[in-house]
Parts: sequence; structure tokens; C-alpha cells
Amino acid sequence: MATVPLGLYLWKRLKQIGIDHIFGVPGDFNLNLLDYIYDVPDLKWVGNTNELNAAYAADGYARVAGAGCLVTTHGVGELSAINGIAGAMTEQVKVIHVVGQTTRMMQQKHLMIHHSIGFNPDHQVFNKASKGFRVAAAELQSEEGAAEEIDRALREMFLKSGPVYIFVPIDLVDKPIPAAALEKPLNLEPEPDTKAVEEAVRAALDALYTSKQPAVFVDCLVQRHQAVVEVRKLVDTLSTPTYTSNMGKGIIDETHPHYVGLYNGVCSGPGVQEAFEQADRVLMIGNLPSDTNSGGFTRRIASDKALSIDTHSVTVGGKTYDNAPIKAVLRKMLDLVATDKLPKTLMPKLPERPLEDDADSKMITQSWVWHRFAKFMQPGDVVLGETGTAAFGLPDTTFPAEIIWITQTYYGSIGHATPAAFGVEMALNSLASRGTARGRTILCTGDGSLMLTVQEVGNMIKHGVAPIIFIINNAGYTIERIIHGARQSYNDIVPFDYSHMLQFFNMPEAEAKKNFHRAHTKAELEEILSKDSVKQPQALQIVEVMMDMMDVPWRLATQIATRGPAAVKEMQEAGFKVRQLNKQEAFWG
Amino acid sequence: MATVPLGLYLWKRLKQIGIDHIFGVPGDFNLNLLDYIYDVPDLKWVGNTNELNAAYAADGYARVAGAGCLVTTHGVGELSAINGIAGAMTEQVKVIHVVGQTTRMMQQKHLMIHHSIGFNPDHQVFNKASKGFRVAAAELQSEEGAAEEIDRALREMFLKSGPVYIFVPIDLVDKPIPAAALEKPLNLEPEPDTKAVEEAVRAALDALYTSKQPAVFVDCLVQRHQAVVEVRKLVDTLSTPTYTSNMGKGIIDETHPHYVGLYNGVCSGPGVQEAFEQADRVLMIGNLPSDTNSGGFTRRIASDKALSIDTHSVTVGGKTYDNAPIKAVLRKMLDLVATDKLPKTLMPKLPERPLEDDADSKMITQSWVWHRFAKFMQPGDVVLGETGTAAFGLPDTTFPAEIIWITQTYYGSIGHATPAAFGVEMALNSLASRGTARGRTILCTGDGSLMLTVQEVGNMIKHGVAPIIFIINNAGYTIERIIHGARQSYNDIVPFDYSHMLQFFNMPEAEAKKNFHRAHTKAELEEILSKDSVKQPQALQIVEVMMDMMDVPWRLATQIATRGPAAVKEMQEAGFKVRQLNKQEAFWG
Repeated sequence: MATVPLGLYLWKRLKQIGIDHIFGVPGDFNLNLLDYIYDVPDLKWVGNTNELNAAYAADGYARVAGAGCLVTTHGVGELSAINGIAGAMTEQVKVIHVVGQTTRMMQQKHLMIHHSIGFNPDHQVFNKASKGFRVAAAELQSEEGAAEEIDRALREMFLKSGPVYIFVPIDLVDKPIPAAALEKPLNLEPEPDTKAVEEAVRAALDALYTSKQPAVFVDCLVQRHQAVVEVRKLVDTLSTPTYTSNMGKGIIDETHPHYVGLYNGVCSGPGVQEAFEQADRVLMIGNLPSDTNSGGFTRRIASDKALSIDTHSVTVGGKTYDNAPIKAVLRKMLDLVATDKLPKTLMPKLPERPLEDDADSKMITQSWVWHRFAKFMQPGDVVLGETGTAAFGLPDTTFPAEIIWITQTYYGSIGHATPAAFGVEMALNSLASRGTARGRTILCTGDGSLMLTVQEVGNMIKHGVAPIIFIINNAGYTIERIIHGARQSYNDIVPFDYSHMLQFFNMPEAEAKKNFHRAHTKAELEEILSKDSVKQPQALQIVEVMMDMMDVPWRLATQIATRGPAAVKEMQEAGFKVRQLNKQEAFWG
Repeated sequence: MATVPLGLYLWKRLKQIGIDHIFGVPGDFNLNLLDYIYDVPDLKWVGNTNELNAAYAADGYARVAGAGCLVTTHGVGELSAINGIAGAMTEQVKVIHVVGQTTRMMQQKHLMIHHSIGFNPDHQVFNKASKGFRVAAAELQSEEGAAEEIDRALREMFLKSGPVYIFVPIDLVDKPIPAAALEKPLNLEPEPDTKAVEEAVRAALDALYTSKQPAVFVDCLVQRHQAVVEVRKLVDTLSTPTYTSNMGKGIIDETHPHYVGLYNGVCSGPGVQEAFEQADRVLMIGNLPSDTNSGGFTRRIASDKALSIDTHSVTVGGKTYDNAPIKAVLRKMLDLVATDKLPKTLMPKLPERPLEDDADSKMITQSWVWHRFAKFMQPGDVVLGETGTAAFGLPDTTFPAEIIWITQTYYGSIGHATPAAFGVEMALNSLASRGTARGRTILCTGDGSLMLTVQEVGNMIKHGVAPIIFIINNAGYTIERIIHGARQSYNDIVPFDYSHMLQFFNMPEAEAKKNFHRAHTKAELEEILSKDSVKQPQALQIVEVMMDMMDVPWRLATQIATRGPAAVKEMQEAGFKVRQLNKQEAFWG
């Protein structure tokens, strides 16, 4: 029977499921595991500047390539990464966290090995800490059955879409295990209840056929469960007004003739909420109704209107069909839909966007900058909006077709987007090496968020990748200022002088000077955005965008207004522009 | 009945127990809690560049000031800090982690508030993750009994010496609670079994009286349990050869006439192990026998020789006396000891330190630099040795009296020392404001470790503190190279150009140029170390020390040699200098 060392089995399997790059930080309990990476053709080790950054990078990579992987060491590394893993759990991103553990002997004897806790340490105390943040784990303690455990964890990751752990005591790494399983690809497909799927689809279609003015709402979980192609076809087929959310943006081409806009309750653009509410049936696909992705829970759809296709079930008219995975449901719907039975719908006419009070400003304003970015985007781009004003501003940027939009709007951990952008660049390189034409990576972050994970910019330079990074420099945590304590010192940050960043991270002086840009005014930003070296970057570009610390996107102010009149009063007293919501509109009121 | 808002109660209590600075990162579930910090005279908010750095800073602060505190926000912040808290658990450091949680209503209704997980989120999932990493927690859910819960957690922190959590749902912050408890200081003293203490002390003293050549071994837990003053007096009184460990260094003045050296089994300096083994009884005080603090478990003391004063118990001749806290035991021992009954001991004569092969090198070598630093140290300094070559090199630096030595040698999380040094500076400022003369903060770190948490250097500049930071630049993870994969790419790091660091972190150019120093040779380092501006810094000093990537302190090579002949062979083949240990010496062999 052919065998393969356990460590090599693991990496070969990951390569088979589409992973070309392994993120992480070395440590003495993973070094010999890392050695086997070099034995797999076209699989590359990519170290990170710390473990949290590695988790974020793997998350960004996964959002583009399908799945991502990081490796850490027992305890110290494992725990440093845990917040990134919890983010993947919340956002349903497929991240494999491989942890090199102490040897089984050390574990059994409770030895006081460095990184452990106490006088009689339980070496599994760290493993226990992540139980709430993973959809499965392979907790290897023997070479017997190890391959099956690894395969099971990877399969669960795809079925549930979320992070998994693979724990490898370091003395197991070199153990031979059967190689046979590697000869056929891992089965990652769910086994749906085909009867339930068909019944669900027929019920949903009947509800659409009998409606007068149906609508479609597409949210981010479609993307997490590999159903983007199917949902795009369905939207083409149904030819009915289509909406999405802050997080679902980009799945449907925003220039599509049936696309209306982002519907997030009271945090929707002019006319969008009114248009949506005309619908008498809504096909809700992959909905993720967190506060931040639903206008503070103001995206309300009466249950008799909603036909919900969730990730693993369908609900129509109060009846739920289980074991009906979203991709299988959408495929069946494409099979069965009779377009001639669908009602003819009118596309709503949205009002013109009203002119903002600050439209004449020569300075760069929130009301201007996000619309301006629309012209900068190109099909194929991956756009990242960091939690902060960027995540609430970019929803105003109309994207061309074929954009991948990345935002951690439910988990909302500031610092995520910069290492994620590094992961995205590596994923785009992976895809390009297989012949897919690659777009650019465009990161919009803020000075507050960038501070947390800034060293990963150095990794971009080390690896010669060329994202465009827009840094909204508004002197601190503006997203917190509008919530509370606008002028309190806790909302100030440690200021950086970004003009020295590239050189600090080891870019040669001449290049660094060329690749750093700072804009105080709209005119300056226009000039920067018109440069070919920025538009088609050959090296990392930094564009520092100076903005007022008390200027916020309207969506952010409106989102906070859903908390009620006291929140509105506080915002107004602090000097923020925001309208009072009426009682009907506001969830918290 | 006088009342006080719960938030204010918390901060007033922390101020009473000696905390002047609160570390952390703001978030929307802690902002109104932070407001109350400004209402407590001489209590200051100190934001950090991320939550892990905040935890490390609070840890460094606690190691100097007694206890430290950080505040984070629900989920994202809380988990980002968890590795720093686990470090405090391992190293028995008193850190209070205050977490601002979602409101009780949000928790009870399982609302999908940002930072949560899933469709029906359990908001306490993050709290559960830290259960293994704390000695107590106040999980507040009502204003009733909240004061008692806070006080209980703080008392437990002192009794057990370790991290505690205080969870505050944000809607509780403004609730009035009784103020009465604040009128008397919190009782932080343990309640020993006085009979057990006396019996234990008498047994230990009898064993010393009947010995011929006793010795004292002092380790780091003495410091964690507030018994430094007592142990120093005891060492003066016993007048017998005294030893310490890597982690216990500095507690006993290394120029004290009865101080012999660091005893870490085979990883002891010339003659120290032989001298120690002459003892027929050893008073072991506050021992922490982790692999890294015991020469790979080669610090072996026969149980009939050892008289162990542990943190909460004493063991003499196989009999254990419980509920005997270390400080009470040492005090009682000072009361009862009859010095005339103690045997007269001879101080061992250690051999001269042999000349190293590379003694003639003009370049900066590991065998030279740590000894050189001895001349640079001054009484009152706080010296931090980061995990890496620094932690294994600084044990060779003979300290003058009154040094506080900080190293995370058991937990060993690289990245700890830089934010910890920031915390130390704030703690020294606290103590200075109460009239204690303050020394300098001296941080020895490496390029690998600094990378993980480098942004906290910016915080030092923002706050105008003036530590001296030595950066061992040896092109990567040298501590990993010697363990495994000396030339593998995973042991390379992202290179930084430190000459641009201070300006990136916003120090004005003229100052930045003055405060950055780089040494390639011994002569260059000598010149830098002789400058008054470095010796008595008025601003942050960076000294980059260029060293060979394959040069390691002898203690590190010897430590790894304890793993056995295969480890030695691998080191030698990679080109490291190391001697083979004989079978008797090596634990793993």
C-alpha cells in the first residue's frame, strides 16, 4: 500500500481543493509541517507579519479563490489568529486553520512546555477556546484515520461554509498514512433532499407566477455558497426588479437593466425603499440580516411576501423545506422556471440624487468621493471596503460588471481589510497562473483601521504585489465619533506619516516617492486618479485622502439614527448632519 | 444611600488599587464606559494601536505597577486581545480585561448585532472562549450585586495572581449602584492558615539548621506574589549561596556577595551547575519549572534536598502545608529564623569565563554583546528581553542592583515585549508621579518579534516616552533557524528599514535622525552606547544592532541540545556551534 507522510497528505489535499498559497507564521511546533509545503508543486508558503494578519489574509484569499489556509503554532499563534477565524465564522468564509501542536507525549504528560498554562498544563486548552468559532475540526491524535479526519473537516468546510481547524501534534507530521485517497478528488458537493428541493422550487415558482409585481433580493450568502453563476442566470431569466444589500453588492451587475439598488430599509438610496415596498412577492436569496446589513433591522418584509432561499433551506408561505442547499435550489429553479408564466413587471423609476449641501466644496467630502470612485472601477476589480466610513461609503459607488466586493460588515473587525487585500492579491495571482485574466485590488481603508494591521503593507512590498490603497485620513475613529464621544480623546489614534510608510517597509526611495500620493482637494485627487501609474499600477500605490474628521457617509448617520431619537440628538449636538427618523421607520425607537 | 454609576464605580476601584492608566481600544460597546474614566482624578485613558498590543501593554504595566487594565469591545476587540491575556495567565500577571458587551436586551433576544456570530447569536460565545485564560470573572447582568462582583474578581486577581475579566453590558454602565464600598480600600490580602504557615516554616528552618551546605533558589513567582522585599531580606539573613533562573533574574541583586548565578540545569554558566549540586538542602522559592526556565527540565533537585516554598503551599520532606501563601511564609521565616543555628557555608568559586572562538571579531557577536550591555545598565532600570535571542542572551548580562527584569519566557509569545515596554514606561511615569525616582526602560528585541507589534512604537512617540530600544537585526527568525529549517524561506521575515520608522510614526525629521542609530561593528555600538543622549534619553532611542543570522547565544543552543542527539546533529549540520550533551544531562535524550 502506497503511503505518504501525514504532513504531505495535508498539503496535497489543500492543493487539490484549489489552494496555491499557505499563509501563517512559523513556530517551533509547525516547522517540520511547513517543510512539506515545498514538496508540493505550485504550492507556496507565504509568511505574514503576525498571526491575526495571516487569518485576515487567508480570509481575503478565500473570498476570491474559494478557500484559504493559514498555519500557526500551538497556543501563542493559534490564539493570536482567533479573532480572524471568528470573523470567517460570522461571515461564512472558508478558512482552514492548521495548528502545529506539541507532541502527543508532551500532551499526555502535561509537560510545562513553553506556550502552555500552569503547572500541570492541559495543552488542549487553546483548542477548546476556538470551539465556538469553527464548523468542524480534525483533532488528530493518531495516524490511524488521520486522512479521513482531514477530509471530513475539509468537506464540512464546504458544506457549511465556515472555518475549520486541523490540529497536528508535531510528532505525527512524518508518520506514513495511506496515499490512496489522494487519487480521487475530495467530494465537496452536498447531498440534497432532491424531493424537498423540487417541492420548494415549485412552491416558490407558483408564488412568483401568481404575483403581480415580484422582486428579487440577492445577498452575500449566495457568494459564500458558490451560487453566483446560478443567481446571475436566474436574475437574467426572471427579468424583474432586483435589489441587493450592503454586503451583497457586486453579485448582480449594478448596470444590469433589472438592477434597482441596495435595499437596506431606511438606509437605502433615494426611492429604493419605496420601490421595493411595491413588490407583492420577494424572492430573498442568501439573506444575511445583521443590523449593519439591514439598516438597523429596518429591512422588513412581511412573511407572506417573502419567498426565502436560505443557504440550506427554503421557506415559502410559512412552510420550510430543509436539506435544500442554495446552489441546488437555484439550479432546479433555472430548470423548472416557465418564463411565460411570470408577470410582466415595470422597472421602478428612481428620483435623481439630490444635490448635497457640500457639493461645492473644493475639499474632499464623503458625499462626493464615493461617487467619484465609480469612474475609477473596472470590470474584474476586487474592491475592499474596510469597516468604518469606507464600508458605509462604498455602497454609493456604482460598480461596473464583474466586481468582487469584500467587506466584513457583519463581523466588523477593524484592521481586517489590509491583510485581506494582501490575500486577495495572492489569490488573483493564483487565478492568473491558471489563465484567468486578473483585475486590480482596490482597498479603501481609514487611518484608524489601518493602524491595527499596518505591517502587512510590508508584506505586499516583499511580494511585489500592486494593489491600490486609498487611506481615508480623517484623524481618528470617525465611525466612533458619530456614535459617541465625538471629541473625546479615546477617539483619537496614533498618527502616522504615510509619506514614510513605503520606505519603512523597504521600498527603495525613488520608487517610494513615485508610489505615494496625497490629496487634500478634489482637484488633487482627480489628478492622482487620472495617472496611468495609479490606474494600471505596476507597484503598490498609496493614495492618502485627507478628509474632515466630522464628515461621514449619509448611510452611517442614518444607520445610527435607527437607534432612536436620543442617538439622533447626540449626533446633531456633536455637529453631524442627520435626519430624525419617524417612529415607523426606526427599529429601536 | 449614596450611589454612583456602575461605570464610575469600576474606575474608582481600579484607581484605588493602584492603576493610573487604562489601556485599550474604543468600540461602540465601550464608549460610554470610557467616558467615566475622565471623571476619576489622575486616571488616564491610554489608547493602543490594537487590542493585542493593549493586552501586552497592560501586562508590562502590571509587571511594574502591580496590576494593569485594558478595555476592549464585544467580540472583535475581546478576541483580538485574548492571546495577551493567556500570556498573563501563564506568567501569573495581574491584568484586568474589561469588556464592553452588547446590551442585555440584545443578548436576550439573540439579535444579529455586528460582531456576533450566526443567525441566532449567543453573545456570550466570546466570554466562553476566555474561560481557560482567567482566574476569575465578573459577568455582570444586573446592577444588583455588581459592586460585589467587581470587588470579588479584583480580590481573586490578587490572591491567585492572574488575569480577570469584567464583562459590562453597555446598558448597565450608567445604572446607579451603592457607593459605600468605595469608602474603604478593597481587602487584597489572603487569609492564610497561620498554623500551617508556622509549622511549614519551622520544618523548613529545621531542615536548614541540620544541613551542611544549604543553598537558596529564587524564581520569578516571588515577584508575581509581591514577596520581593521579603525574599531579599531572607537572602541577606541566610547568608548562603543563592541562585536564580532565567525568569527570576534581577530579584536578587547579581552583585550581592551571596549571589552565585543562574541555575538552569545544563544551561547554566560555567561552574554554576557544579556549585549548585554541592548543596545538600535547597530552599526553592517561587519556582516556575517550564522547559525554557529550567534548561529543558534539567534543573533537577532531589526531593529530599528540596524545601519548596511555592505560591500557596510549602513542601518539606515530602509533606505539603497548604493555604500557606508565599509572602506570609517568608515573613514568618524572617520572624523565626535563628541565624546562629545556620551552618556556615562557603561561597563557591566559579571558573573564569572561557574566551569565545569569535572573541576577536570586529562584528557584533552574541558572545560579546550581552556582556557589553552589563556596563550600560543602571540601578532602577526596567529591562525587557523579547522571546528570541534576546531572552536567551540577556541572562549573560550581569545586572546591577534594583533592576526589574521582564521576559515572557514561559508563554513565549513573540511581539509581547514592545507593547510591554510602552506599558512599563507608563507605569514608571505613574510611580514617578507618586514620588518614586524612575529609571529607564531598556528593550532588547529582534527584527522578527518587533514586526508583529511594531505600531506600538508609534504610541511611544505620541506619548513622548523615552525608552531605549535595541533591535537585534539578524534577518529573520534566528531562534527558529536553530530549531529547524535554518535556510528555509519560512524563517525569513518582511524586512523593514528602521531608519524610516520614527518618521513613519510621526517623529519630526530632525529629531528622528538624532534618535536613530545603527551599529554594524562593536566599535560603532561602543560609540552609540557612550552618547549621553542614548544613556540618558529625553526621547525614544532606536539602536539597530546588525548581527549574523546564524549567530545565537550559547544558552539557546544548549537548551535545544537538551532535546537529544538528533537536535544537536541538525544544529551542527546547519552550521551552529553547539556541544553534544551526555545522556545523563539531557532530558529528552
